[in-house]
Amino acid sequence: MKAAQYQGNRTITIGSSHPVAPGEGEVRLDVAYCGICGTDIHIYHGAMDQRVHRPLVIGHEASATVVDIGAGVAGIAVGDRVAVRPMFFGEPSPFDKGHPHVGKNLKFIGIDMPGGMQSSWTVPAYTLHALPDSLEMAHGAMIEPAAVACHDVRLGRVQAGETVVVIGGGPIGLLIALVAGQMGARVILSEVNDSRLQLAAGLGMDVVNPAQQDLAGTVQELTDGAMADCVFEVSGSAPGVEVMTELPNVRGRIVMVAIHPEPKPVNLFKFFWSEIQLIGVRLYEEEDFDRAIQLAASGCLHLDRLITQIQPIDEVQQTFETIDSNPDGIKYLIDCRS
Amino acid sequence: MKAAQYQGNRTITIGSSHPVAPGEGEVRLDVAYCGICGTDIHIYHGAMDQRVHRPLVIGHEASATVVDIGAGVAGIAVGDRVAVRPMFFGEPSPFDKGHPHVGKNLKFIGIDMPGGMQSSWTVPAYTLHALPDSLEMAHGAMIEPAAVACHDVRLGRVQAGETVVVIGGGPIGLLIALVAGQMGARVILSEVNDSRLQLAAGLGMDVVNPAQQDLAGTVQELTDGAMADCVFEVSGSAPGVEVMTELPNVRGRIVMVAIHPEPKPVNLFKFFWSEIQLIGVRLYEEEDFDRAIQLAASGCLHLDRLITQIQPIDEVQQTFETIDSNPDGIKYLIDCRS
Repeated sequence: MKAAQYQGNRTITIGSSHPVAPGEGEVRLDVAYCGICGTDIHIYHGAMDQRVHRPLVIGHEASATVVDIGAGVAGIAVGDRVAVRPMFFGEPSPFDKGHPHVGKNLKFIGIDMPGGMQSSWTVPAYTLHALPDSLEMAHGAMIEPAAVACHDVRLGRVQAGETVVVIGGGPIGLLIALVAGQMGARVILSEVNDSRLQLAAGLGMDVVNPAQQDLAGTVQELTDGAMADCVFEVSGSAPGVEVMTELPNVRGRIVMVAIHPEPKPVNLFKFFWSEIQLIGVRLYEEEDFDRAIQLAASGCLHLDRLITQIQPIDEVQQTFETIDSNPDGIKYLIDCRS
Repeated sequence: MKAAQYQGNRTITIGSSHPVAPGEGEVRLDVAYCGICGTDIHIYHGAMDQRVHRPLVIGHEASATVVDIGAGVAGIAVGDRVAVRPMFFGEPSPFDKGHPHVGKNLKFIGIDMPGGMQSSWTVPAYTLHALPDSLEMAHGAMIEPAAVACHDVRLGRVQAGETVVVIGGGPIGLLIALVAGQMGARVILSEVNDSRLQLAAGLGMDVVNPAQQDLAGTVQELTDGAMADCVFEVSGSAPGVEVMTELPNVRGRIVMVAIHPEPKPVNLFKFFWSEIQLIGVRLYEEEDFDRAIQLAASGCLHLDRLITQIQPIDEVQQTFETIDSNPDGIKYLIDCRS
């Protein structure tokens, strides 16, 4: 029973995962796999040390099996295979306007409280989503990022027949592209890494390397001047923000997926001129997990091709170091069974 | 029959307005009043000399009476009192996505072709909106800016009971505040000019001078922490762009009304964190004119209090000079009857 604990200073150690008996409304899980998210990398880099109390068991992209059930929990049985929606809802605030998933008092499990990169994990029962038998447990650890993509595509109001441009082809960008493609949209993916571009092309997307090709010009050509109905900024880069306003058509949407810690110059004139919209998105809601599970089970998300490596929990430190040195990688999972 | 012609170099001369017989689908008008818009001021300053062919009869905020009707025009009679929606729709483009009012080939009457600051004016019949008998002709010249406000409030999806903050208390900002108030929203207006603040306060709005008071803190106090559901950036200023992201609550909307010619730093993190939205708006559609006329006729827009001065067309040059030197003024109308 092991746990991956962030200690600060780019150090993740392996400690013990002590099974915690589930309280009322809680469930104890045996974790199978836990993915490493960009946020985990930020934590590892120390960028979130102000928020993160150390040592912290990190991880929030987990698949697991139910092993113990607390009082007052209905609809869940020992042996159920589940994905975890890692949110702990606090007191509602008038500021939240009925959207607790981004509410003022939300605690995120794996950042603000112990996460899923451990063998035994106790969580509120409402966080669980049942996985169908047909879905491999490794793929179950991809449900959380897939739910992010489902949320982003839903809030971006993507429709069949629309043209979608995704700026940035990391795990979330690729999943957004796949989910939008599944909606019937034509998808153009912009990415500077050749290996990621090859992967995206192999998944049937039009791909552009904006370091070598004019992205706006290519979109114009590919769409006969109709341009993009929806643009996803997932790169977190200044060039991404610069080009994002060049792509939408009249009343087109730009979905802000990436985290831009510092203000960046934005071409506000374009918003006025063509009545375009910027839609901020964060995390997910219950229905996004349901949709992600449905899509994953159907096979259309090609999760096997998005998983770069599965490593045992004992090698978590090396895995973070590998991610830092390998820009070609997509998703790394940690095998937490021990 | 006189016409106000922009000649370049901050010069507007009075020339002849030659009646043009209406062609098929056209109508000839005797113009009553024509308002001076911020865009006219930009033209006068030379800021749009690249777009504007000189000499140009400026003006696009007109009330008028129908005096002659071309072939193929139905539903309009000589003597009808009208407001003009000053748009000439070009060929539809796939980029437009069915929104001709901001379409690629739109020509704006009064910028791209002769406008309404003249005694006799011939326009397409589809531009006309009948004014009710109860509405004064001077107030009819306020329908165009009121339609802008109706459009902006509609696209901002303002609902009864919401809190709205309007940044900038010029003519459009005040009209947005009045239209939003009429929807049943609670309105807070932010403006640095004391005379405009007094006017807004007299119209029943909560007012804030952000040069003297912390705007975000005041909104927080006034709303018990619920903050704003919808923010209108009408100031066109860097401080306006800076504060606009501090005001919305979760999924709150920021409506970009102002023209920001140069990119400005925007706090994109806030869009992500609270899932807020930026909605670009420009001009108006047919229904916005209908709504503006309905509201103007009901008296709730207090148009008398927004009209600073009505000047004869012979004094148009002096009037533009007055506007440049009087930051307290709201709306100046030109009397085009001659």
